[in-house]
Amino acid sequence: MKLVLAYSGGLDTSYCAKYLSEEKGFEVHAVSVNTGGFSEEEIAEIKEKALQLGATSYTSIDAIQYFYDKVVKYLIFGNVLKNNTYPLSVSAERIVQAIEIVNYAKKIGASHIAHGSTGAGNDQVRFDMIFQIIAPEIEIITPIRDNKLSREAEIEYLKTKGVDYSWEKAKYSINRGLWGTSVGGEETLTSEKPLPASAYPSQLQENNSKEIKLTFEKGELIAIDGKKDSPVNNIVKLDALASKYAIGRDIHVGDTIIGIKGRVGFEAPASLIIIKAHHLLEKHTLSKWQQYQKEQQGNFYGMLLHEGNYLDEVMRNIEAFLTDTQKNVSGDVFVGLHPYRFELNGISSKHDLMNASFGSYGEINKGWTADDAKGFIKILSNSGKIYNHVNHNND
Amino acid sequence: MKLVLAYSGGLDTSYCAKYLSEEKGFEVHAVSVNTGGFSEEEIAEIKEKALQLGATSYTSIDAIQYFYDKVVKYLIFGNVLKNNTYPLSVSAERIVQAIEIVNYAKKIGASHIAHGSTGAGNDQVRFDMIFQIIAPEIEIITPIRDNKLSREAEIEYLKTKGVDYSWEKAKYSINRGLWGTSVGGEETLTSEKPLPASAYPSQLQENNSKEIKLTFEKGELIAIDGKKDSPVNNIVKLDALASKYAIGRDIHVGDTIIGIKGRVGFEAPASLIIIKAHHLLEKHTLSKWQQYQKEQQGNFYGMLLHEGNYLDEVMRNIEAFLTDTQKNVSGDVFVGLHPYRFELNGISSKHDLMNASFGSYGEINKGWTADDAKGFIKILSNSGKIYNHVNHNND
Amino acid sequence: MKLVLAYSGGLDTSYCAKYLSEEKGFEVHAVSVNTGGFSEEEIAEIKEKALQLGATSYTSIDAIQYFYDKVVKYLIFGNVLKNNTYPLSVSAERIVQAIEIVNYAKKIGASHIAHGSTGAGNDQVRFDMIFQIIAPEIEIITPIRDNKLSREAEIEYLKTKGVDYSWEKAKYSINRGLWGTSVGGEETLTSEKPLPASAYPSQLQENNSKEIKLTFEKGELIAIDGKKDSPVNNIVKLDALASKYAIGRDIHVGDTIIGIKGRVGFEAPASLIIIKAHHLLEKHTLSKWQQYQKEQQGNFYGMLLHEGNYLDEVMRNIEAFLTDTQKNVSGDVFVGLHPYRFELNGISSKHDLMNASFGSYGEINKGWTADDAKGFIKILSNSGKIYNHVNHNND
Amino acid sequence: MKLVLAYSGGLDTSYCAKYLSEEKGFEVHAVSVNTGGFSEEEIAEIKEKALQLGATSYTSIDAIQYFYDKVVKYLIFGNVLKNNTYPLSVSAERIVQAIEIVNYAKKIGASHIAHGSTGAGNDQVRFDMIFQIIAPEIEIITPIRDNKLSREAEIEYLKTKGVDYSWEKAKYSINRGLWGTSVGGEETLTSEKPLPASAYPSQLQENNSKEIKLTFEKGELIAIDGKKDSPVNNIVKLDALASKYAIGRDIHVGDTIIGIKGRVGFEAPASLIIIKAHHLLEKHTLSKWQQYQKEQQGNFYGMLLHEGNYLDEVMRNIEAFLTDTQKNVSGDVFVGLHPYRFELNGISSKHDLMNASFGSYGEINKGWTADDAKGFIKILSNSGKIYNHVNHNND
Repeated sequence: MKLVLAYSGGLDTSYCAKYLSEEKGFEVHAVSVNTGGFSEEEIAEIKEKALQLGATSYTSIDAIQYFYDKVVKYLIFGNVLKNNTYPLSVSAERIVQAIEIVNYAKKIGASHIAHGSTGAGNDQVRFDMIFQIIAPEIEIITPIRDNKLSREAEIEYLKTKGVDYSWEKAKYSINRGLWGTSVGGEETLTSEKPLPASAYPSQLQENNSKEIKLTFEKGELIAIDGKKDSPVNNIVKLDALASKYAIGRDIHVGDTIIGIKGRVGFEAPASLIIIKAHHLLEKHTLSKWQQYQKEQQGNFYGMLLHEGNYLDEVMRNIEAFLTDTQKNVSGDVFVGLHPYRFELNGISSKHDLMNASFGSYGEINKGWTADDAKGFIKILSNSGKIYNHVNHNND
Repeated sequence: MKLVLAYSGGLDTSYCAKYLSEEKGFEVHAVSVNTGGFSEEEIAEIKEKALQLGATSYTSIDAIQYFYDKVVKYLIFGNVLKNNTYPLSVSAERIVQAIEIVNYAKKIGASHIAHGSTGAGNDQVRFDMIFQIIAPEIEIITPIRDNKLSREAEIEYLKTKGVDYSWEKAKYSINRGLWGTSVGGEETLTSEKPLPASAYPSQLQENNSKEIKLTFEKGELIAIDGKKDSPVNNIVKLDALASKYAIGRDIHVGDTIIGIKGRVGFEAPASLIIIKAHHLLEKHTLSKWQQYQKEQQGNFYGMLLHEGNYLDEVMRNIEAFLTDTQKNVSGDVFVGLHPYRFELNGISSKHDLMNASFGSYGEINKGWTADDAKGFIKILSNSGKIYNHVNHNND
Repeated sequence: MKLVLAYSGGLDTSYCAKYLSEEKGFEVHAVSVNTGGFSEEEIAEIKEKALQLGATSYTSIDAIQYFYDKVVKYLIFGNVLKNNTYPLSVSAERIVQAIEIVNYAKKIGASHIAHGSTGAGNDQVRFDMIFQIIAPEIEIITPIRDNKLSREAEIEYLKTKGVDYSWEKAKYSINRGLWGTSVGGEETLTSEKPLPASAYPSQLQENNSKEIKLTFEKGELIAIDGKKDSPVNNIVKLDALASKYAIGRDIHVGDTIIGIKGRVGFEAPASLIIIKAHHLLEKHTLSKWQQYQKEQQGNFYGMLLHEGNYLDEVMRNIEAFLTDTQKNVSGDVFVGLHPYRFELNGISSKHDLMNASFGSYGEINKGWTADDAKGFIKILSNSGKIYNHVNHNND
Repeated sequence: MKLVLAYSGGLDTSYCAKYLSEEKGFEVHAVSVNTGGFSEEEIAEIKEKALQLGATSYTSIDAIQYFYDKVVKYLIFGNVLKNNTYPLSVSAERIVQAIEIVNYAKKIGASHIAHGSTGAGNDQVRFDMIFQIIAPEIEIITPIRDNKLSREAEIEYLKTKGVDYSWEKAKYSINRGLWGTSVGGEETLTSEKPLPASAYPSQLQENNSKEIKLTFEKGELIAIDGKKDSPVNNIVKLDALASKYAIGRDIHVGDTIIGIKGRVGFEAPASLIIIKAHHLLEKHTLSKWQQYQKEQQGNFYGMLLHEGNYLDEVMRNIEAFLTDTQKNVSGDVFVGLHPYRFELNGISSKHDLMNASFGSYGEINKGWTADDAKGFIKILSNSGKIYNHVNHNND
């Protein structure tokens, strides 16, 4: 029986590879989906390990562009920060990984899919839901969730099978991807402790503040400091640049899909800068009501994405809405990079609605008279006046 | 005819005082409403000036506590940051100032109210609307808006009347209040330029990072570092403390009530720290759906407040909602103060729903089994499965 | 072991009574919660049956007033019609029944609760969720869900135990309660067939149209045709009156909590008339923004109630909001009753904001001039004008 | 100077034609925009009158299809009923009429546009806003609003100019269009009185109930009883059919743009049937969250359209959203027509998500086990359990 294993090279999925091929007799096809977290060297290592552990084949799927096209782009359009903080880095990747894996499984005619999630997190929901919806005929196998094995037991089992890698547990579990890196550790299991600075992958290397120019076209980041490149490459470049300033660290506190609260650290310099810069550009180029509706739609989109509901058709509808809002979201945003923080300095756009030829805020106006303003306010007061008159509510 | 003049001591309202008493024959009663921006010395100066300019009386109304009780408290409960940035410092004050002024005018039986707003900003709308709704029988007079006088013309007029103060125009116009200080200047009339650091009233004085503890009870800030005090005093203290770190500077870009875009700098260290700390405490103590609804209601409340619709009855309804959400928003929040920025380190609350006894995020769970989780996900997938089955949408 | 059985007198719960007492050795305490569906005679019958089937005790809890106070009142305040059609009759009752049952179980120290729900509907979710949240220490037992017994098997089992009632299956399953009666049958299992007229409990008895006057005070129905009575009694009276006209029949199509679509007929004359009359009164007495927010909050409240999330704290928060909106929702509503339909003829209220002294719609206005109107519109057009000017979008 | 007059043939615009050409020396180009309200005979009459009154030219613009494409279609997609009652018949037409008129004015190089609105209604806002936004360079002239002439004065003036038509005031003012007919009269100026049956244009002519089949494709009505035709023609046909049953009468109570409440009767059989039938089809073919978002977006779209904000870019964004939701809204809806009312009997669609092969509501389920359901509910209860455990809130 062909089985596709979502394989990361870590202890849990290594255990799965061995256990499923050797004890359960599956023809294990290990697959890892790269959404920005793996270098070529790492992929080569993962491949070697997978085959050593008994996998019949190993495939690395490059899904970075797909991840951007299907998810990241809309997170930017929607200025999505879960609970006003978290760019949904990992949540978003899992969706795309699940889709790639189930499509691969269908392509090779696998009857089973296995993954290494536990029974206490969000990832099991995201993986299982997408697998079941896209391929209800494929059976899902989750040894870690089902058997509740300890790390020690897994290591022990692998040793008995002659696999003796060093599985030292890192003090912090790190998940890297295009849209950010999550950081978990003993502090994030508490409510009161911050992560120590050393827990974050990037450390301050640059003390000299600097202004950069981000150029957006229809909501997408098409250039940094005037150098055009693909949005994906620009994210990678901006990440490299801003992480030297140790920008973009924070801790997300949120509700998991299974109803408990969770806390996770993250480092996401490019995501945060892009979202905030994009948002500023929108404040200049969108109408008040566009912004009002975008805020609600964006939050809702983020909630459903986080909860693994990416395949709900409403997500496509909201994507159509968001795309349509970006027609004029083009222009330059000037961002100041400083140690541990960034500032939005201003924007320049031919679609800028803050247009001096129509009168400036607080300055003497060109487009209307004092009487116009007074008439405006008088009629704007009508409903309140009537309400008070009727309800004698004049206190 | 008795006239109440909203008087600030600046050139515009000084011109009004003279002009209305001398040219128009009003009995001018100058009133300033202190929502946190004036010291006793400043008030004494304002008083002296008012009387010299021909006012029959001058009254300073202390509305700080009223401002907190009627507006600021709800801005905290609702985590209100207009356009995700601006704590609505000035917008919120204007409302309370208008209410105090119109109530004063009714008390002394004035037939007219005058204020110094121009015809191009938000303040005219906020003032006029509240005046007209609460006292439609009182006539509103706005010489600056009506006559479009230049500063020079105003100064000239006052000189001819023997008033020869020094009216040097500050490079930056500053509005200080309990909930923040706004800063306008030539840069904020452009879209691309940030304010220079020197434009902000507070400058960096403290380089040593420090952690403070903010204690909230039912959403209100009742203690700093364990020292209990009134919320108003705590805001003042926190402002003093955090402004030494030059925390809380930003530029707000928004839509004015009259339909043009505006840009204004602000410095609001206490407001930003309190809102973000309060929000974090809510992430730990409120349900997912409470947070979802609060976000929408809070944004809406901020929009209507900003636009001067404070008296719309829906605002009272939302206040009832917000107050009800705060029952368990009690506990400590640990905040790190650093030069130019702050960090939220964590919280401690007996209402913390991130409760380890119910299983931790990602850890092996105590309250349910792997089979429960699988059943959960299976049924959660039902609607998606059916959708795909019916619509053959398996790509 | 003490077990509380949610008992209705039907085949499923009769089976449970016998099976749990005789095969499983429980001390079965049968409880039925009356939310408006049972007469005294029916309760006496249910009691007799329960004791015959082996229950140690039987208790009928009268929860009609509690149902009104805790749920129905807010459904009226929020004008809640699920999917714009269904007054949530049964959904709402289940919540209150579950709360009463679990509280009874705690009071008598029961270790188990049993109910007769299947595994394919909403009721299992509503019951189980409330039981588990309020009393996680009590175990839930659901023989019908677990054993998937057919009606025939249940009848057969009861016969072998000497219980030989006539269990003829009604062609339509009817659930009656204060807030409406649901009707299920073979037609509601299809998408295309309506229920035949004969399936509805009430039949047309009155052909003469008639106008009645409903008096509301702060959103509650306090009198019909000038006769004051409690809201609960008024609902009962209005139901009796309007059901003679065969008013209030419809079919609800909705999403179940478990992700499948369901269809159910209902007859709810009082609920529909009250909600529509109340809504009309609100159109006259609430501000535009109150109505806007109420619509969103009411829909959301209905969604969560329907899905069994009644205990989520956000529901209390929304109830606080809704209650606050009702301050001025007082007055008379004139309703025409006709065969199969009703009409809203008009309202009379001292809080009516459609107040002729402020100018009437389309008539020459008293409160403002043509110039005021023109100024109003001019400034209202500002943002659009700027948008078009900037984006050369004049087509 | 060329002036375009929005001309309807009524007294007000007839006065304008004469007054503006004769007293003010304009070259008056009369234009009427047909959005479904005028027959060819009526247009011929209007033309004759216009020319007699001094218009240089008269043009009738047929905008029925444009009205459907630009507005009506989206009102159906969004199931838009203002305040849950009114299909926005007239509001929607005014928008399209304004756009056609201003485009015509630009085409012929007119320097002025005139219309006959008063200063107390919504239409002045809708017209002026669209004129100003699309053509800020064109001056707007509104003699009726400016001069507040009485009907008598207008008739007198026309008589002195030799125009002596019979201008008897109809007891009810009727506005007919593709999407419904509004009816105003002395009753609608009160809050308590309904319109008499005779005030409605259509009277009951058919007592025999009848079922019809409406076929939708991607949300548009493409056939009635299997006969294919354009959506516009289908609306016209359905109107003719259903108005014989006197279906679709009601009174709308709403907030005008200028802040007062208004009340207007209407007769809109086709609009109401189509919207309700379309909505039912959506309940079967859309996901829960699609319906949730559509309800909010649809209401918002209706609010902005009603208030004349049609040109706000957010409207285009919402149209993109709505269009995207209609992909699977195809199928037949069975509607029963009865005197004064209609019933929705059911639907048939290949996209129907109420699909028996996945288990039926309340029936024994095929896709999951009792244990799955129990696991689902257990985990769904997690957040509530934790909340109660933490807050000891078990009452």
